[in-house]
Amino acid sequence: MMSLGEFDLIAKYFDRPTRRAALGIGDDCALLAVPTGMHLATSCDMLVEGRHFLSTVDPERLGHKALAVNLSDLAACGAEPVAFTLALALPSADEAFLGGLSRGLLALADAHGCELIGGDTTRGPLSICISVFGLVPAAGAGALLRSGARAGDELYVSGRLGDARLALEVFRGTLCLTGGDFEAVRRAMEMPQPRIALGQALRGIATSAIDLSDGLLGDLRHVLQRSGVDAVVDVDAVPRSATLRAQPLAVQRLCTLSGGDDYELLFTAPPQSAQQVIAAGISAGVALTRIGRIVGRSGAGREAQTALIDANGRAVAHGVASFDHFRT
Amino acid sequence: MMSLGEFDLIAKYFDRPTRRAALGIGDDCALLAVPTGMHLATSCDMLVEGRHFLSTVDPERLGHKALAVNLSDLAACGAEPVAFTLALALPSADEAFLGGLSRGLLALADAHGCELIGGDTTRGPLSICISVFGLVPAAGAGALLRSGARAGDELYVSGRLGDARLALEVFRGTLCLTGGDFEAVRRAMEMPQPRIALGQALRGIATSAIDLSDGLLGDLRHVLQRSGVDAVVDVDAVPRSATLRAQPLAVQRLCTLSGGDDYELLFTAPPQSAQQVIAAGISAGVALTRIGRIVGRSGAGREAQTALIDANGRAVAHGVASFDHFRT
Repeated sequence: MMSLGEFDLIAKYFDRPTRRAALGIGDDCALLAVPTGMHLATSCDMLVEGRHFLSTVDPERLGHKALAVNLSDLAACGAEPVAFTLALALPSADEAFLGGLSRGLLALADAHGCELIGGDTTRGPLSICISVFGLVPAAGAGALLRSGARAGDELYVSGRLGDARLALEVFRGTLCLTGGDFEAVRRAMEMPQPRIALGQALRGIATSAIDLSDGLLGDLRHVLQRSGVDAVVDVDAVPRSATLRAQPLAVQRLCTLSGGDDYELLFTAPPQSAQQVIAAGISAGVALTRIGRIVGRSGAGREAQTALIDANGRAVAHGVASFDHFRT
Repeated sequence: MMSLGEFDLIAKYFDRPTRRAALGIGDDCALLAVPTGMHLATSCDMLVEGRHFLSTVDPERLGHKALAVNLSDLAACGAEPVAFTLALALPSADEAFLGGLSRGLLALADAHGCELIGGDTTRGPLSICISVFGLVPAAGAGALLRSGARAGDELYVSGRLGDARLALEVFRGTLCLTGGDFEAVRRAMEMPQPRIALGQALRGIATSAIDLSDGLLGDLRHVLQRSGVDAVVDVDAVPRSATLRAQPLAVQRLCTLSGGDDYELLFTAPPQSAQQVIAAGISAGVALTRIGRIVGRSGAGREAQTALIDANGRAVAHGVASFDHFRT
């Protein structure tokens, strides 16, 4: 633990020359140029110790995840990352922690051409608040929204779901995994990969998109509510790892349907766009799986409904709600 | 205390139709249009309970202040407020608290045409992280920066300094004020008024500007460092309230020079712009006071220095450093 001043801390670990922003760290505001014809997309997430991450997490992985969950929001709207700001509350100016955090954070930022343009550092219970900024065309093949799903669209998901929740359950002591399996699912929980390339590739193809942070069924519900439609999901089609497949079916369904922390993209596209969807997945290097379809909603004002079926088309009961920070 | 879900909470207190943003609350990202020829200015601040505000603060005043300190950063760069995002960690979903917080926050936002376009809510130790967005011309009479102060410039400050620190000292029990006096300085601490109109009026006139959040001398030092100059400040000229003037001289100097939480603008302008400065103050309805001047710095690589003098031009000793969240 050191007694570095606030400004020394920021400078030592986070102050780097900006290349894209009109003005970066060190003034009252940062300045961003937004090209004509583009919108600025922005999103913010706050991660609190004990709630979004464990106190034992490797600081480098924490840095990665803190930015990854924000980049995942840019991915879901099809934006190109440009910059981010970092507000940090720290119980103490622990140099080892700050060094690791900045390494993880800036490595992911560099991988996506997303530069740190400002922030705030204060003493307090450990929490990390990041705002990300991206660019997306204002018209034409513009931002992917939650509101565009239409009856007849097919429902897709990227990657595999449920491993992050499986890792959390190991940390909670509700189940056990052997070393190699645990490391793999722990990596899914701690090092999610934001689907930036996929989001951009889906512009003009997907009719709606959202990133999976709170669990498939809960996040799907947001799309259905905003689009005014319902959905049918084939629970056996939801992609999962071999490690998760080795678990009892109830665990598989809990983790894939209500897991949370997946940071994959859930999106819809009409059947006639199937070839373009496949091409987008290949160009982004991400596996895509069709897991269901969008159906019309009967009854005005009714809540959105998701019917769950298995591979044989039989109805499946599933009572688990979305992970909600004020309900759990 | 209620057990409202996260999404209900956000909707109940903060979800309102957006008028200026291309896309507001409710999707993965918000979308902002930035007119051709303008830059987007952004800044973020995190307020932590017990550090930046007392647990006994009126929630409505807390909401006001949380946005005010961010708007003050836009003011310092001469930007027009457009939008903000709010990330909130709450120990519980206390409706009375949220109702007050949103009233104070949205009232100030409405007063400045600054709309809420997104955010995040989570359970955790009480903290508020706001990012603000504003527009400023990319060229011509563009953003006010910290880096433009030149030898010969005059040094100005808006409003009166030190009352917020005086109120803090009453809360700390180091001094006493009678009811009316206490209410007035407490209001200065809890309800700072961001100098938005003044910042915009100073574009093309001021050579540098900063908002006073950490104390006059500490914040002035940022301007001097980035501009490569030194300064002379007449400590008797620093504007203060009658309540503060009734205190011993040592208290007056502590509060005005190193007080913190003033949220007034400190700026520089050449002597030939004095009439324009006066006009800007009048148009913005804010008192402006000349408190010193910028002088050249001799010795490359040396730290910035501020010489303090009194009304008779005699040197004044003052050893108090800036308020720094990791040093205090």
